[in-house]
Amino acid sequence: MQQRIRNHLLRSRVLTADEAQTFIQDGMTIGVSGFTRSGDVKAIPRALVDNIRKTENSRQIHLYSGASLGDADSWLSTQHVVDRRSPYQSDPDTRQGINCGEIRYIEQHLSHSAEWFRNEHIDLAIIEAVAITENGGIIPTTSVGNSPVFVQKAKQVIVEINLSMPESLIGIHDIYIPENRPFRTPIGITHVADRIGTPYIPCDPNKIVGIVMTDDPDSPSKIVAPDEETQQMAEYILELLSHEVKQGRLSAKLAPLQSGVGSVANAVFSGLEKSPFNQLEIYTEVMQDAVFQLFDSGKVSFASGCSFTLSESMRDHVLSSLPRYRKQLLLRPQEISNHPEVIRRLGVIAINGALEVDIYGNVNSTHVRGTHVMNGIGGSGDFARNAGLTIFVTKSTAKNGRISSVVPFVSHVDHTEHDVDILVTEQGIADLRGLSPRERAKTIIENLAHPLYKDALRDYFERACVQGGNTPHLLDEALSWHHQFKETGDMRKPVSAMM
Amino acid sequence: MQQRIRNHLLRSRVLTADEAQTFIQDGMTIGVSGFTRSGDVKAIPRALVDNIRKTENSRQIHLYSGASLGDADSWLSTQHVVDRRSPYQSDPDTRQGINCGEIRYIEQHLSHSAEWFRNEHIDLAIIEAVAITENGGIIPTTSVGNSPVFVQKAKQVIVEINLSMPESLIGIHDIYIPENRPFRTPIGITHVADRIGTPYIPCDPNKIVGIVMTDDPDSPSKIVAPDEETQQMAEYILELLSHEVKQGRLSAKLAPLQSGVGSVANAVFSGLEKSPFNQLEIYTEVMQDAVFQLFDSGKVSFASGCSFTLSESMRDHVLSSLPRYRKQLLLRPQEISNHPEVIRRLGVIAINGALEVDIYGNVNSTHVRGTHVMNGIGGSGDFARNAGLTIFVTKSTAKNGRISSVVPFVSHVDHTEHDVDILVTEQGIADLRGLSPRERAKTIIENLAHPLYKDALRDYFERACVQGGNTPHLLDEALSWHHQFKETGDMRKPVSAMM
Repeated sequence: MQQRIRNHLLRSRVLTADEAQTFIQDGMTIGVSGFTRSGDVKAIPRALVDNIRKTENSRQIHLYSGASLGDADSWLSTQHVVDRRSPYQSDPDTRQGINCGEIRYIEQHLSHSAEWFRNEHIDLAIIEAVAITENGGIIPTTSVGNSPVFVQKAKQVIVEINLSMPESLIGIHDIYIPENRPFRTPIGITHVADRIGTPYIPCDPNKIVGIVMTDDPDSPSKIVAPDEETQQMAEYILELLSHEVKQGRLSAKLAPLQSGVGSVANAVFSGLEKSPFNQLEIYTEVMQDAVFQLFDSGKVSFASGCSFTLSESMRDHVLSSLPRYRKQLLLRPQEISNHPEVIRRLGVIAINGALEVDIYGNVNSTHVRGTHVMNGIGGSGDFARNAGLTIFVTKSTAKNGRISSVVPFVSHVDHTEHDVDILVTEQGIADLRGLSPRERAKTIIENLAHPLYKDALRDYFERACVQGGNTPHLLDEALSWHHQFKETGDMRKPVSAMM
Repeated sequence: MQQRIRNHLLRSRVLTADEAQTFIQDGMTIGVSGFTRSGDVKAIPRALVDNIRKTENSRQIHLYSGASLGDADSWLSTQHVVDRRSPYQSDPDTRQGINCGEIRYIEQHLSHSAEWFRNEHIDLAIIEAVAITENGGIIPTTSVGNSPVFVQKAKQVIVEINLSMPESLIGIHDIYIPENRPFRTPIGITHVADRIGTPYIPCDPNKIVGIVMTDDPDSPSKIVAPDEETQQMAEYILELLSHEVKQGRLSAKLAPLQSGVGSVANAVFSGLEKSPFNQLEIYTEVMQDAVFQLFDSGKVSFASGCSFTLSESMRDHVLSSLPRYRKQLLLRPQEISNHPEVIRRLGVIAINGALEVDIYGNVNSTHVRGTHVMNGIGGSGDFARNAGLTIFVTKSTAKNGRISSVVPFVSHVDHTEHDVDILVTEQGIADLRGLSPRERAKTIIENLAHPLYKDALRDYFERACVQGGNTPHLLDEALSWHHQFKETGDMRKPVSAMM
């Protein structure tokens, strides 16, 4: 315990999780650590839910985090503890609560949330840590997220010290908190590896009202292994990057890479292992398995992110090999990992997943049929808007061909055509840079759409062009594909055929 | 001439406009000065069009600029000279060429365009200037726009020296060009008044192949005077700002202000004249008449922008009073005036116009009925995404009530709900910060919609909620209001009523 709680006064504040959960009062706004299932608080949410179940004494909270928690999101949502949730989630039970209108979801660009929380009242911060320093500094575990702003703003702080997290995590964090406006200065990152902050979250020890010792590992990532189609998409992207190098728009080291969470992004990074590129740098939000495979194969020289989200086997490998990795990686607050200032300065290459794209290149990343949210916009907008090269990927169909991911008009817009340079499906790649909307439409339909839908898209576009406009559309048909799917279960089957 | 062309070797390169236009060859990519009708090239486009008319020897070019030109946009479009146009325009003839598919329009966020041009081939730059320095430096006139990158990239440069522009403009420009990646460093602006560059655009004198002496003033702005409704909207915004000060989220000096081009934005700034706020600062793209009225009334201490766009009477006043104003203002390249890095650092208050908004707060700024572009996204996205407080304004109806500006589903998305804090119509104000989508919908319908449309919006939303989702919609009705207007000329009149 001396190693993990270095401030001796704080050692008397160790509580059980059940004691700690009593600090959570009905109606409170609570900021917790956790980013894409990593470094989230675990014992106190479980104790809270257990207590509510046992006592039938329900409590509802506003739950703010870095991004998605691990299993805690499910426990809390299933027990109806969550009134408001922000800024991101990826849990089926939470999703259900949001879509039925029970949970009020405030989706935010992940780089924006810290600034928003600065103007909010936060009652309590609960932060997972490896250790607490002599002066009260909190050393996070496998993610940083919004924990710095929660600690700064909260009246009270509770720390979960996770003994399953090795002490070799100490030193990999770089905590930088921008000054309050109007005294804010530039963020001094000009290279991926630049350190500009402290290795812990500064905290007045008097604010720490409880410490809970835990031993649970992070919930493992749910990533699916690359399949033939994701590998094909990865190959298109690698060909594009080679072409950019040939054209002199990128150096052989490329530019710092970002990839969204998910299988295609992971497949692209896996594909880099066999690529001619070397000395790669990563400036991303979440480091998935493939980043560590690239370290192991010597392809990557440095990676900066905001969390690790790893499969079970990779997690054990990484945590036991940290002494080797730690000189090559660091974890930053999400305000910094996703900051437009840094992303634009570095000219990041951003690769993110889409649910659907339309013929002009607008992207829906979040809402199925425009209504039901899957996860949330997350950091995709931070990177897409500011990157040097912005790529979105999606398979051309879903549900065995019954859904086309290339549609006349996206049913929800997360990223407008102006923020999309390149689109990729397993059918091909569309380079939209410098094209007018009508040129984009032709390229998207011909290069990306599945043969099942190509003729219907051509037909829509041709008839729309007759009506004119910069982005021709037939407004009475624009969303009919989605409506058809909802009514008939197949985008190809018209509603009238049902009658 | 000695004063205006200080490099004596260059004095031999003075040409007539007709001689200069011969440098423009069919198929060329040409970068010109000009930003919202200010500081644009005038004599050479007119000579080009005259020559084409006379000789019937047509030429087509890719025309890149800062933003909209003055009358030159109309001359060139009417004569079918423009093949591609980027990144912005606001001219009826150009608009018509775009919407009928003749002109290929590459609309861009205005802060993005310089970076894009860095990777493009530019044949010729034509830049309006007050003077040329001893070392070839070009001193722009009433706008800076993308001129620095055009001069840097073009193989040849022609300068229009406009003698109607007073020499007192010299010294008000601050030209900063970011280093090429990966050597780029922070942009050193931490206060609105910070100077970080040179007062001229650096240029190798050998690249200057011609100089044309001109004497035409800028085309005056087309701004409409505030009416009762725009004044009402301005009042709502001023009340909001007072409230923010009371809540401690803003100081009494507010934060640097930005306003889009247009009457409402101008009305808000006019409203500041009678407000309790003092020592205001402006960090904007375009300075309209109201900015100078605020200088005159002592309300504004400093204004930074990328161009002046003034009415005829204000133009004469400003140009003759520059010795008084020049210590309080400066003009930057649009890459800097609109840079996310600076906008977010300063926490700008951004006020921009919308064409229509939907019940969840998505904004359409550009495309009538989702198809026909008016102007372009311009800088609105640069400011909306990165500001400390983002406000959009629109009247609640158009066409004598036949169009509702509050609709179930916007027919084109320029700004997603995540980038919109506050919406304002003459009916009221909607503060959307921290609200879930269903809460946003209620607030928008109740506070912003015109009574003519309120019941229909409530009805749509209630029926959509029955179907569920995070952003409930009825996909078969979502765009029906626009379709009805197209078919019947009135959003309230169903298409079926026509049959």
